[in-house]
Amino acid sequence: MRMVDIIQRKRDGGKLTREQIYYAVEGFTRGDIPDYQMSAFAMAVFFRGMDEEEIADLTMAMVNSGDVVSLAGIRGVKVDKHSTGGVGDKTSLVVVPLVAAAGVPVAKMSGRGLGHTGGTVDKLESIRGFRIELPNEQFVRNVNENKMALVGQSGNLAPADKKLYALRDVTGTVNSIPLIASSIMSKKIASGADAIVLDVKVGSGAFMKSLDDAKALASTMVSIGKSLKRRTIAVLSDMSEPLGTEIGNANEVAEAIELLRGGGEPRLKEICLTLAAYMTVAGGAYPDVAAARRGLEELLQTGRALETFRTFVEAQGGDPAIVDDPGLLPQPAVTVSVRAEQEGYVQSIDAEAAGIAAMMLGAGREKKEDAIDYAVGLSLRKKVGDPVKFGDVLAVIRSNREQNQDIAETILRAYTIGAEKPEPVPVVHAVIE
Amino acid sequence: MRMVDIIQRKRDGGKLTREQIYYAVEGFTRGDIPDYQMSAFAMAVFFRGMDEEEIADLTMAMVNSGDVVSLAGIRGVKVDKHSTGGVGDKTSLVVVPLVAAAGVPVAKMSGRGLGHTGGTVDKLESIRGFRIELPNEQFVRNVNENKMALVGQSGNLAPADKKLYALRDVTGTVNSIPLIASSIMSKKIASGADAIVLDVKVGSGAFMKSLDDAKALASTMVSIGKSLKRRTIAVLSDMSEPLGTEIGNANEVAEAIELLRGGGEPRLKEICLTLAAYMTVAGGAYPDVAAARRGLEELLQTGRALETFRTFVEAQGGDPAIVDDPGLLPQPAVTVSVRAEQEGYVQSIDAEAAGIAAMMLGAGREKKEDAIDYAVGLSLRKKVGDPVKFGDVLAVIRSNREQNQDIAETILRAYTIGAEKPEPVPVVHAVIE
Repeated sequence: MRMVDIIQRKRDGGKLTREQIYYAVEGFTRGDIPDYQMSAFAMAVFFRGMDEEEIADLTMAMVNSGDVVSLAGIRGVKVDKHSTGGVGDKTSLVVVPLVAAAGVPVAKMSGRGLGHTGGTVDKLESIRGFRIELPNEQFVRNVNENKMALVGQSGNLAPADKKLYALRDVTGTVNSIPLIASSIMSKKIASGADAIVLDVKVGSGAFMKSLDDAKALASTMVSIGKSLKRRTIAVLSDMSEPLGTEIGNANEVAEAIELLRGGGEPRLKEICLTLAAYMTVAGGAYPDVAAARRGLEELLQTGRALETFRTFVEAQGGDPAIVDDPGLLPQPAVTVSVRAEQEGYVQSIDAEAAGIAAMMLGAGREKKEDAIDYAVGLSLRKKVGDPVKFGDVLAVIRSNREQNQDIAETILRAYTIGAEKPEPVPVVHAVIE
Repeated sequence: MRMVDIIQRKRDGGKLTREQIYYAVEGFTRGDIPDYQMSAFAMAVFFRGMDEEEIADLTMAMVNSGDVVSLAGIRGVKVDKHSTGGVGDKTSLVVVPLVAAAGVPVAKMSGRGLGHTGGTVDKLESIRGFRIELPNEQFVRNVNENKMALVGQSGNLAPADKKLYALRDVTGTVNSIPLIASSIMSKKIASGADAIVLDVKVGSGAFMKSLDDAKALASTMVSIGKSLKRRTIAVLSDMSEPLGTEIGNANEVAEAIELLRGGGEPRLKEICLTLAAYMTVAGGAYPDVAAARRGLEELLQTGRALETFRTFVEAQGGDPAIVDDPGLLPQPAVTVSVRAEQEGYVQSIDAEAAGIAAMMLGAGREKKEDAIDYAVGLSLRKKVGDPVKFGDVLAVIRSNREQNQDIAETILRAYTIGAEKPEPVPVVHAVIE
């Protein structure tokens, strides 16, 4: 078998066999197949696509390129959640304890943030003492005892995906649905999930800008799950403005706690309840989504979800006092209000621009090796559809910098204010299962 | 400027600027742009193509990546010829002295053979004493005195093309017309040609299997020539069977001499006269192609073309006696006749199979470093359209091996014999200028 023949077959629109896909992925992981052949192959896939069987084979070839986490020590159906990434996306901080409180075990591996999107791991590390690395035994024990644990991605999971992603990033081959879908699914399957609920973001602040593209990606991932016998449900959720009111780290933890108390912004609550409902149904805690929503709402109102979160924080070395007093979380030196310079209704908030503003403050990383300032970020006081008067506070900058004029200007540009009240956009566009 | 943006622009069907193309080619030549980006770029070009301006820019970027031969010391319009490669293609050995005899200077650089196709340089080296390397001064002096000289490709001509071709060969990106056309034209322009006549082979033995593909390639090269002010004419010639009767080295030189004496196989003579006619018109020796053909025929009949060849051989150190007695060229130890096992008409002769048989005998190279046995090869005694009786000699194997059964079987398989006389195929399909 020769890689050049595999490239040419895909280039000419042919279907690849499982053997060919494994040959390519295994050779690439070992370093026998050079980057220049893999990048040409990725570009051929960009143009020619892959069918369901090829994508499932590619996914499993990447899973098998490294370690596969065994969650056999955990009782019950292990349900994982994945978000394609957004600005202000603290859903994991709400959904994981909520699902766990319903009795469904969640052994979650999360990533760090890069660029304009944040990462769950960074947010949790804003809690004093919190340890994101746990020995595997303790990880399993915590899940059995408290139904949840959350650690950083560790070990040699899907190294082929890691290597291929780095190559795609510099060769113009990121934006290919078969490659994106197999990348996401290979990591989830290598993490040991039995069932997967995907939060596919769509809109200006998301990787997928159009609903059609997002649906295509979601359907592809659901079909991979079907092929590989992992129940997979994709929720298409709106990212045409930042999610919730907080963008940063400590302030996003505080917002998550507010939700776990039964409060919070309605749109954020809606997406959290939707994701948690599908996860708990997949985990067998409720017979259907309607029953799940009722049950989950009760777990919020009775404080049981919050208790699960508190136990989780404590079990991983974090200070549980922040649960009752989020003011104990890192706070910035200054806050600066950004005020409206015109009247009307908020038409849109450029989520990517808001994410970049937060990154500039130090809440995110421009490069992988950058440090995070947990205290800083943005609090949005007006969201899409809200009426605005001249001088109203649109957002509050939480900063440790002396000068924040550039941030204020970025935020003003991110808000579009117009005369008419815009049509409301649903937070959940569709569910594909 | 970033290479990934250039890749994405081409990937999305955009047109590249001259600056972007030079950035890519120069960076790649220096090694600043890695192979994995260039191969992804080549695959994007495969799918999206390039317009005339982009292809001309790519060609000149590759020309400028290395040395450009100056032929300023040669008086007159310097006309070059290039063949896309075939089996039994000794046209340069006939056409170059014929054009020179008409007074048009030809300062030719030729290549060596690889795989099933031979190279002019190897063929000439079958002449005892022949030197294919000449100091540049002597090269120019020989052209001024005898109107022709022929040397191997030397110097640092179009190194970007050399590097890109090696990469394309292993990444499934050879078969792209913009890349093939710019590769050929960059080498010809770097060699100092004022005008270029291209022999684009089409058929089973050629790189271009269909007339449409060959026309597309030819038109692209002619338009590059137009953009870069080098008069360029493309002759589309048939390669559905080997050209002439001889395949090898010494025997191809002998066949060329036979043509220069005014004899030779009619189809081979026709393509040689066509190429020489366009070259001499481009060089200003004749007013039009019809006049050129009459003049060139006379140069063959009067022996003046042969005299030019003799002077050329002597000027480069070769034994001129072979011109009068080709029997002095290297001869094989044995000849083996391959006889027909059925009656009918020759329907086709698989040129690629014949070329591989000659290579197996030692007349060609499987790998670049292989040595050539100049004495060996094939003599075809029956060509397409010839009637064949049982036991007739189809071809003669010229060999230095003891066992030639495998070669004989290959040749028998290469011949297709059927009951009906096939429709004749023209040797020149079209001329594009």
